[in-house]
Amino acid sequence: MSANKKARTQPPYELLYWPGIPGRGEFIRLAFEAAGVSYRDVAVESEHAMAVINSLISQESTGSDGNPPAFAPPALRIPGEGKNGAPLLIYQTPSILSYLGNKLDLAGADEAEKAWVLSHTLTALDLNNEAHDTHHPIAVADYYQTQKEEALKKSKDFRQARVPKFLSFFERVLKGNHAQGQAKFLVGSSLTYADTSLWQVLDGLQFAFPKEIEARKKDYPLLFGTFYHSVKETKGIKEYLGSDRRQPYGMGIFRHYPELDRQ
Amino acid sequence: MSANKKARTQPPYELLYWPGIPGRGEFIRLAFEAAGVSYRDVAVESEHAMAVINSLISQESTGSDGNPPAFAPPALRIPGEGKNGAPLLIYQTPSILSYLGNKLDLAGADEAEKAWVLSHTLTALDLNNEAHDTHHPIAVADYYQTQKEEALKKSKDFRQARVPKFLSFFERVLKGNHAQGQAKFLVGSSLTYADTSLWQVLDGLQFAFPKEIEARKKDYPLLFGTFYHSVKETKGIKEYLGSDRRQPYGMGIFRHYPELDRQ
Repeated sequence: MSANKKARTQPPYELLYWPGIPGRGEFIRLAFEAAGVSYRDVAVESEHAMAVINSLISQESTGSDGNPPAFAPPALRIPGEGKNGAPLLIYQTPSILSYLGNKLDLAGADEAEKAWVLSHTLTALDLNNEAHDTHHPIAVADYYQTQKEEALKKSKDFRQARVPKFLSFFERVLKGNHAQGQAKFLVGSSLTYADTSLWQVLDGLQFAFPKEIEARKKDYPLLFGTFYHSVKETKGIKEYLGSDRRQPYGMGIFRHYPELDRQ
Repeated sequence: MSANKKARTQPPYELLYWPGIPGRGEFIRLAFEAAGVSYRDVAVESEHAMAVINSLISQESTGSDGNPPAFAPPALRIPGEGKNGAPLLIYQTPSILSYLGNKLDLAGADEAEKAWVLSHTLTALDLNNEAHDTHHPIAVADYYQTQKEEALKKSKDFRQARVPKFLSFFERVLKGNHAQGQAKFLVGSSLTYADTSLWQVLDGLQFAFPKEIEARKKDYPLLFGTFYHSVKETKGIKEYLGSDRRQPYGMGIFRHYPELDRQ
C-alpha cells in the first residue's frame, strides 16, 4: 500500500469483535500492535459494538457491498479494498491473519514460509479451540454449570494428553528452526503472526490452567524459557500489553475455573 | 508452473494421510480431482502408509529438508518446491488448500475472492470438526463407547443448534452470490476449493445423520436443491466419486451411529 493511499484511508483497518473479552479478536490485535499499524477496534472504541456485531452475524444477512455474510466475529473491514471500491469484509481468524500478514509483513519471507506460518497458526488456534471446549464440551450456547461434569472429564484429557502433545510439537518447531529463529521465531528469522498467535494461546493457558502449565514449563525450555518472553518483549507488543487497550481475560475462551486445573 | 516443469516433476504432488478412511485427506483429494491434476495418494498406493504417517508425526521429529515437523496429517509433499530445491512439506488442511488452490486455479479470481474462499472453507471445516466431536466429545484418543453418554448430549445440541446455524449460513452465502454463482458456487462464478470442501461435509453429514439431514433439507433449497448436486456432477468429481479411489466412510470423522441421529 502506498503512503498516499495509507494516508487517504486512515484508519484503514476496522476490527469487528465482541466487546468485553480478548477472545479471537486478540489474534488480530496482536498482529496490528506488532506491526505498529493503527486500526479501529470497534469492541473498545464504539458504544454500539454489540449492535454492530449482532448486525454483522444476523441470521437474515446475505452480505453487503459485494461481500458474503460472516459466520462469526472476528471480522476485518478494509475501506476501499473490496469490489468496485467498496469496503472489503473478511471473517475467520486464520483468513484475516493470512490476508493481514501479507500487508503487515508478518507472513513469512517466501511461499514456503507463508504456508508454514499459516499452518502453525492453525495449530495454535486448534489448541485455543480445545481450551475453550474444556469448559463447554457439550453445548457452546449453554452455561458452564450445565456441563460442568463433562467439563471435568474433558479438562483432564486436555491437561494430560492434549496440552503436552501441542506443547511438544511447538517446542520441536522452535528446535528445528533454531539456527534461524534462535527460539524466538517459529518460522525464519523474524516475527510472524504465527509467533503472536501462539504467544496469545500460551498466555491464555497460563491464565486458565496456572498449576498445569507451571508444572509442565520445565519440559519445554525453548517455549517457556525463550519464546514466550521474547514475543512479550517485542516492540509494539510490550507497549500494547502495558496499555489499557489490552483487555483482561474473563468469561471468554480462557477462563480460570480452579476445579478444571491440575489439583 | 510451466508445462516443462510439470512434466519434469510428474507426479508433482504427494498426499500423506492415514489409510482406510476419507478423513481430512478427502478435502485435498477433491481439489486434485476437480482440477484433473494427478497426485500420489500414499494412503491408497503405498503398502507402508501407516509407517509413513507415523514417521511424519513422530514425537521426536523436528522436521526435515528445511521443513518444520507436522502436527497431524494430512500433509502435502511437493518435490523441488522447498528450500534449496528440497521437497516442500505443508501440513494443516486449510493451509494445504490455500497453497494448492492457487496452483490448481481453485482459489478465487482476485484477492477478495481468495480471502472469502479460505474463510468459507474454514467454516466448512469447523462444521466437519464439530461433526467429529459428536462421537468424541471428551477424549479424541479414547473409544466412542467410553464417552457415549456425553456423545448423546453433544449430538443433540449439534443436530438442533449447530447444524441449522451452519446450513443457514451457507444457504445465505449461496443466496448472496446467486447473480454470479447460480447457487452452484459459494464465491464468484466458478468452482473453488470452498465448494468441494463444503460438498464433502454435506455428503458426510448425510452419511452420519441421515434422518436429521433429510428432515432439514427442505429448509435449504439452494444448498440441497442445487449446490450439492451441481458439485457432485462436476467434471472430475463425478468420475472420482464413481471410481474405486473414493473410499467409503467408516470409523473416521463421519460415523453412522443411529443413536446419535434424530430419533
